[in-house]
Amino acid sequence: MDLASLETPVPVVDLDIVEANLKRMQDYCDAHGLALRPHIKTHKIPALARRQLELGARGITCQKLGEAEVMADAGLDDILISYPLVGEPKAERLAALARRAKMRVSIDNPLALETVARAARHGHEIGVLVEFDSGNGRTGVTSIDGVVELARAIRATEGVRFDGLMNYPVSARSGEILRDLLPRLKAEGLEPPVISGGGTPNAFRTHEMAPVTELRVGTYIYNDRMTVGAGHARWEDCALTLHVTVISRPRPDLAIIDAGSKVFAADIMPGGPGEGHGYFPAYPGAKLHKMSEEHGMVDLSACERKPQLGERLRVVPNHVCPVSNLADRVAFARGEAFQGFTDVAARGRSQ
Amino acid sequence: MDLASLETPVPVVDLDIVEANLKRMQDYCDAHGLALRPHIKTHKIPALARRQLELGARGITCQKLGEAEVMADAGLDDILISYPLVGEPKAERLAALARRAKMRVSIDNPLALETVARAARHGHEIGVLVEFDSGNGRTGVTSIDGVVELARAIRATEGVRFDGLMNYPVSARSGEILRDLLPRLKAEGLEPPVISGGGTPNAFRTHEMAPVTELRVGTYIYNDRMTVGAGHARWEDCALTLHVTVISRPRPDLAIIDAGSKVFAADIMPGGPGEGHGYFPAYPGAKLHKMSEEHGMVDLSACERKPQLGERLRVVPNHVCPVSNLADRVAFARGEAFQGFTDVAARGRSQ
Repeated sequence: MDLASLETPVPVVDLDIVEANLKRMQDYCDAHGLALRPHIKTHKIPALARRQLELGARGITCQKLGEAEVMADAGLDDILISYPLVGEPKAERLAALARRAKMRVSIDNPLALETVARAARHGHEIGVLVEFDSGNGRTGVTSIDGVVELARAIRATEGVRFDGLMNYPVSARSGEILRDLLPRLKAEGLEPPVISGGGTPNAFRTHEMAPVTELRVGTYIYNDRMTVGAGHARWEDCALTLHVTVISRPRPDLAIIDAGSKVFAADIMPGGPGEGHGYFPAYPGAKLHKMSEEHGMVDLSACERKPQLGERLRVVPNHVCPVSNLADRVAFARGEAFQGFTDVAARGRSQ
Repeated sequence: MDLASLETPVPVVDLDIVEANLKRMQDYCDAHGLALRPHIKTHKIPALARRQLELGARGITCQKLGEAEVMADAGLDDILISYPLVGEPKAERLAALARRAKMRVSIDNPLALETVARAARHGHEIGVLVEFDSGNGRTGVTSIDGVVELARAIRATEGVRFDGLMNYPVSARSGEILRDLLPRLKAEGLEPPVISGGGTPNAFRTHEMAPVTELRVGTYIYNDRMTVGAGHARWEDCALTLHVTVISRPRPDLAIIDAGSKVFAADIMPGGPGEGHGYFPAYPGAKLHKMSEEHGMVDLSACERKPQLGERLRVVPNHVCPVSNLADRVAFARGEAFQGFTDVAARGRSQ
């Protein structure tokens, strides 16, 4: 069976490109003495997580408990949840995970610490990282005093272990904060065993920006139009492409493809909606300028050669992580050879 | 079990609001002699499709074969696929559907007609509607001559039946086109048995805009921030809300909720990204100004009273259809009473 016989729309993952992407990041981490703890949010597939470990990764990162449960079911046993967990049901589930995997959780507030502490009362020690914000305006403690205070609270809490610090995304500002923060923690006897940094776009500059010891990256396994746009990858490093079909050619300069926002997601490029929703390697001038749920509108006015009605096209999506999360399964390939379908086992596990 | 004990994030569908929304649209259609053929793209749940039929709908509309297969599996037996199908595998699946349901398909090009014709060769007649474009720039024949030509081709094709016309969304322009088109078709002996129009935002004005005989609407069952924004519904008509938890309060004016673009989808309001991604009925001033995949950043600067860390919030999403498509299941409720979980059986069926 070859790729051209797969029904469209279908996400196709080239395992040769995956392998090269994984090795490149592992080599970078090895060269700079960084532990690699890949974020599975991008692929959500246990077999790919196992491959990351085989190549040298220290463990994995998940954003949600539901993802961690899928990975633990598949035998992954060293998991960081890089997300504050809040509430009794989350504590129960974290406790169940801690019985079968080495668990760490990042927190940025006392209620999240309480959740981890509740989980730890079931008898398995759980590691805690304090997340600090370096300007992203998302989760993360926003002051050095706040980080120190939370680290002290962790030390004072039974059953949990202060494992260090976490930050996303790593930037020059992360380095500045750490320069001030690390002496403060050392003075308290709270030297962080781990300093975890994340973010694919600047991953290969991590060693220049901040003294992190562990790197959490997700998108690097597949890459996408955004990582290419950021100069982190080339088109040939994009492992996941959407294979689609031209189902209508209502005007000479317009092609309609059989995939819209329910396949591509609606993430827009940093430059705004005007930049379109995907890149067509065989038709670089084609612009996926508009999508409805199941239709993609492709402006062909900048194409000399134009795709025909019924033609199959390949598209690199803007942001690959939500594309995985929309698909129940992906097709694995090596070059043009179809290798079978694989379930995106942790898709939709947002709880 | 009450709603407050459900783990977040979770989409909750209030069946009392659903019922009122369904009745309101059915009443409108009955009052104006329109057949209602609801689009299941919004809910993707067979039980809700059956309820639409019980209340008087003529049949259902699906966008993709995969959705139609799920619905046919559940016993729905009168299905319009409002989407051009292209290729041999689609023909095979359409033929299989035609063995167990009355099938219609809309087309806008000869290759899509060929697909239906191939399916019909398996022995079951299939109805065909010609889609015309009234300015949406999506699928649809763009000239009156083109529509007439395609209708003639349908008549000349064995096993398929010319069932009429389709248009999305219905507008005043649709009415103008039909004024010119209908006499042309009549002169050819091709009077359309069905003129199918679609689109929730202007649904209640359909009878003023164009002589359609059948209405395809989807979003009206749940409503969302866009239909409220368009003046079609009130906040209390929004049947699906996302229940989320405040997992971090890094700054006085910022709350982080446990749901981002992998729960809300990233659809932006017609006014642009500045309008945010959801509406908080209990905190009308709160603005979901930014999302990452699993985090929602809520600006509280316009709120006098502000939600606390750990608090549960309810959010009306911008566009509800892709929200359903992200969820494996939704919680059904009546008011505050939890009624059980229901699988979103046709989610992700984009093929």
